[in-house]
Amino acid sequence: METRTGPTAAVAAGGGAHLACAGRGALLLALVAVAAAVFLPVTESSCPRDNSLVKDVSKMYQSNYGREGFSHITIAGALAHGMKEVEVWLQTFGPGQRTPIHRHSCEEIFVVLKGKGTLLLGSSSMKYPGQPQEIPVFKNSTFSVPVNDPHQVWNSDEHEDLQVLVIISRPPVKIFTYDDWSVPHTAAKLKFPYFWDEDCLPAPKDEL
Amino acid sequence: METRTGPTAAVAAGGGAHLACAGRGALLLALVAVAAAVFLPVTESSCPRDNSLVKDVSKMYQSNYGREGFSHITIAGALAHGMKEVEVWLQTFGPGQRTPIHRHSCEEIFVVLKGKGTLLLGSSSMKYPGQPQEIPVFKNSTFSVPVNDPHQVWNSDEHEDLQVLVIISRPPVKIFTYDDWSVPHTAAKLKFPYFWDEDCLPAPKDEL
Repeated sequence: METRTGPTAAVAAGGGAHLACAGRGALLLALVAVAAAVFLPVTESSCPRDNSLVKDVSKMYQSNYGREGFSHITIAGALAHGMKEVEVWLQTFGPGQRTPIHRHSCEEIFVVLKGKGTLLLGSSSMKYPGQPQEIPVFKNSTFSVPVNDPHQVWNSDEHEDLQVLVIISRPPVKIFTYDDWSVPHTAAKLKFPYFWDEDCLPAPKDEL
Repeated sequence: METRTGPTAAVAAGGGAHLACAGRGALLLALVAVAAAVFLPVTESSCPRDNSLVKDVSKMYQSNYGREGFSHITIAGALAHGMKEVEVWLQTFGPGQRTPIHRHSCEEIFVVLKGKGTLLLGSSSMKYPGQPQEIPVFKNSTFSVPVNDPHQVWNSDEHEDLQVLVIISRPPVKIFTYDDWSVPHTAAKLKFPYFWDEDCLPAPKDEL
């Protein structure tokens, strides 16, 4: 799994504290990776399980999961922290970065902590998403994505990072992705478990 | 319903933007109240229904709901915004302010945007909460309250506001309150609908 964070993905976690933690985080991760290679099963090394009651967000596991200019932290998750009904992420998008075009049947609420961008919202009532609405979002705004509507969050700003808290129901998330807005809903591809959940699925027990 | 905001309850909404909106908010509310008295049924005047897709948090309805030094905004709610599975609040506690001692069977996640404080956590395995654990929380930390554990969030700082984003599952929230930590769980009082939900319950239809 990719753990490098791009130059634009430095995380300023909740509350607008612009913590210069990406470098330190990368160092910590490197240390953890070394420790894991020596002492722990490989299947556990990149799953950020942590059952402490209060967690410092700036010290939580982050990764770009293979996307340039992106950072994701599962602040409270089903697989990592035992949540059953809700999950919270902190995500940072460098200038120009986007989520895939995707849909899901869970509820999803965004709170924009930093920067500005565009919510692209397609249709779920046609056979394919079609030309999306382009809806501006901005620091200190909130929006919720209608259930099953195909959408994409885009940092349409050329300079600033876009940072959002994302809340979903019914974790872990089941995401259907579209290569473009003309792909029929029935041809969207299910990606499950999603990238940040892959490493947290229980490893098969060794039966030897 | 109480709509005055205390001097310590100025809301610096998500992302640490210290918006001086309490005064302006109070003015807007006063205007809305006047308009409501003239044009709208009274039952609708203090329910912050708003179905716009993107909302500016600094312009959303806020109130102290009768508590000095407190501010609550329902950022995404069941009764106000049609959420079915999750609800998000922005709450600000002035120095020394606390939630009631309470419990609920839904999941609850906090993200601390500003300030510091103490999570007081009682027991759900004894017949009453008992002497609570005192757990420090701080800016850029996150914590989740174990389901049904009696707890209290306290801004134990003498100077700064404590601001938190609160995420709950299964809205609207059903809260059992305790007068103190020695009240038996069976004697805790159900407050439903909770204060910020009271004004959003559908008014009975006029059958005349």
